[in-house]
Amino acid sequence: MKKKKIVVIGGGTGTYTVLSGLKKYPVELSVIVTMMDSGGSNRVIRDEFGFLPTSDIRQCMVALASNHSSEILRQLFTYRYNQGTGISGMTFGNLFMAALTDIYGSQDEAIKRTCEILDVKGNIIPVTYDNVHLVARYDNGEQVLGEHFIDEPDEGSGEHKIVELELIPRAKANRRALKEIKEADMIVFGPGDLYASVICNLIVGGVAEAVRKSRAKKVYILNLMTKYGQTDGYGASDHLRDLNKYLGERAIDVVLVNTQRKFPRGIMARYKQERAFLIKDDLTAKDAKVVRGNFVSNKIYNKAKGDNLKRSLIRHDPEKVARKLISLL
Amino acid sequence: MKKKKIVVIGGGTGTYTVLSGLKKYPVELSVIVTMMDSGGSNRVIRDEFGFLPTSDIRQCMVALASNHSSEILRQLFTYRYNQGTGISGMTFGNLFMAALTDIYGSQDEAIKRTCEILDVKGNIIPVTYDNVHLVARYDNGEQVLGEHFIDEPDEGSGEHKIVELELIPRAKANRRALKEIKEADMIVFGPGDLYASVICNLIVGGVAEAVRKSRAKKVYILNLMTKYGQTDGYGASDHLRDLNKYLGERAIDVVLVNTQRKFPRGIMARYKQERAFLIKDDLTAKDAKVVRGNFVSNKIYNKAKGDNLKRSLIRHDPEKVARKLISLL
Repeated sequence: MKKKKIVVIGGGTGTYTVLSGLKKYPVELSVIVTMMDSGGSNRVIRDEFGFLPTSDIRQCMVALASNHSSEILRQLFTYRYNQGTGISGMTFGNLFMAALTDIYGSQDEAIKRTCEILDVKGNIIPVTYDNVHLVARYDNGEQVLGEHFIDEPDEGSGEHKIVELELIPRAKANRRALKEIKEADMIVFGPGDLYASVICNLIVGGVAEAVRKSRAKKVYILNLMTKYGQTDGYGASDHLRDLNKYLGERAIDVVLVNTQRKFPRGIMARYKQERAFLIKDDLTAKDAKVVRGNFVSNKIYNKAKGDNLKRSLIRHDPEKVARKLISLL
Repeated sequence: MKKKKIVVIGGGTGTYTVLSGLKKYPVELSVIVTMMDSGGSNRVIRDEFGFLPTSDIRQCMVALASNHSSEILRQLFTYRYNQGTGISGMTFGNLFMAALTDIYGSQDEAIKRTCEILDVKGNIIPVTYDNVHLVARYDNGEQVLGEHFIDEPDEGSGEHKIVELELIPRAKANRRALKEIKEADMIVFGPGDLYASVICNLIVGGVAEAVRKSRAKKVYILNLMTKYGQTDGYGASDHLRDLNKYLGERAIDVVLVNTQRKFPRGIMARYKQERAFLIKDDLTAKDAKVVRGNFVSNKIYNKAKGDNLKRSLIRHDPEKVARKLISLL
């Protein structure tokens, strides 16, 4: 029997989680990855090396690295330097791929070779090879350029809603991405920053349309927390509405909603400092098929040394999420 | 039958050449490597990371990487970045080992793990784990601190002879180095910068004495060219005299001298610009057993992009040198 095809669309930690869980199942797994990151290590890769940003790809590689691949290499790929002028804050993985890009003269080739070295199971597909930046337009008329600034807005400006997300310049989808979407049995969106990790993929020319046309079951994994600057004050239905706005009416078939809402008070206090709160579940059967359950990991995640970016402290559990997705296939 | 033990003492390109040739023979190979480099990538590793310099070790690793190890990794280990503020000029290999040192909390462990990844054949032994700098005293009374400045002297000051090379602070030999020297059947010195790559190892506490006491056959592979700042105007016997000064009278049993002296005029002109000239062979049987032959590679070597250091253009041939060394065992 032919293996079922699952396509995950996203980037960042949420996608890492989903891939880590799904890779243990006998499915054909592809991930379509955002190429719009502009912060930290990626700023250097973009501005100083003139390459496309690779942090989201790097995370997917580590998630899909086979258990037979060298544990040392996997550790290195998640390593971030914390010393050295110009080096501190860079990730090893990005420097690794930058060197390979220079050696092979092609970022596409560098990604392929890195996947070989890490013995990656599955297809890692940059959503586009065009060098583009995100532009968000807010309900107060302001525009913000750059993923990094959308992700971490200025103090006091994060309550404004994004009314439109665009790319500058316009980008064309990687043809492999469109092919995988077309042939998929299931397409998974999120979890992850609704605009900066999920919708940013859908505004690449051809992607939203391909998703709409695909006969795949479309599953949206709702985030655990709201995010200041992107989904401040959003309930579950607000998230789904924004996503469907880019995909098409009722495009999402299933929404996975976490029901476990008890977390250590200290954790919630730290989220509160970042103006992030548990997302209210206000979905009804009219919106989509809503699958509720405990999808949260019992582990508490901490930031790595040298990491100046914000990372989520509570996360979805790879096994719980994957088991549910497989049952929905 | 027990394999014969060959210990190579040095660092830099010359040692790379010898190791590349010897690794194809069924001998037990060890290399004792200088840890005094202070230029380029190593300056950053020493001053900004607070680690010991690893460039000489890195070159040995590449030389001894098994043919089964990933060709990509070997290429990466010789790669030098040419873009990125603070990153340009760094070698991938040094950044690789810096990351592992941080992950494992020990440079020794980082070196071992890297050898595993590259499937290194042979033992790579830092001559010392002490953090030291070279100090050269010249015949005009001047003192220069730092391998890099000894290696590349100021214009007009390179004719002065080094009368004494010391370490600041004093260094203790790595015990593994002393053990290998003791048990060796052959010890090979050079080719390479006489002071900055060879003698610098012998002034580490315990090394010269261990060499003197060892019953190994001691072979010195004479350089092809003089080097401004270290061996300006030196003939072959001057080289040998300086080496024996640190090792003991007539400590060197055999000197390998290249007899091929015809090179393209353009190459010689470039050497002349660096005030480097073919070394005059003035050795006699009174000095040591002199083995003469064509030990030169037919390939002409060029500098890699991003490499701001001086590299030799004509080099010893790994196969020719190794064949002769094995015949002398």
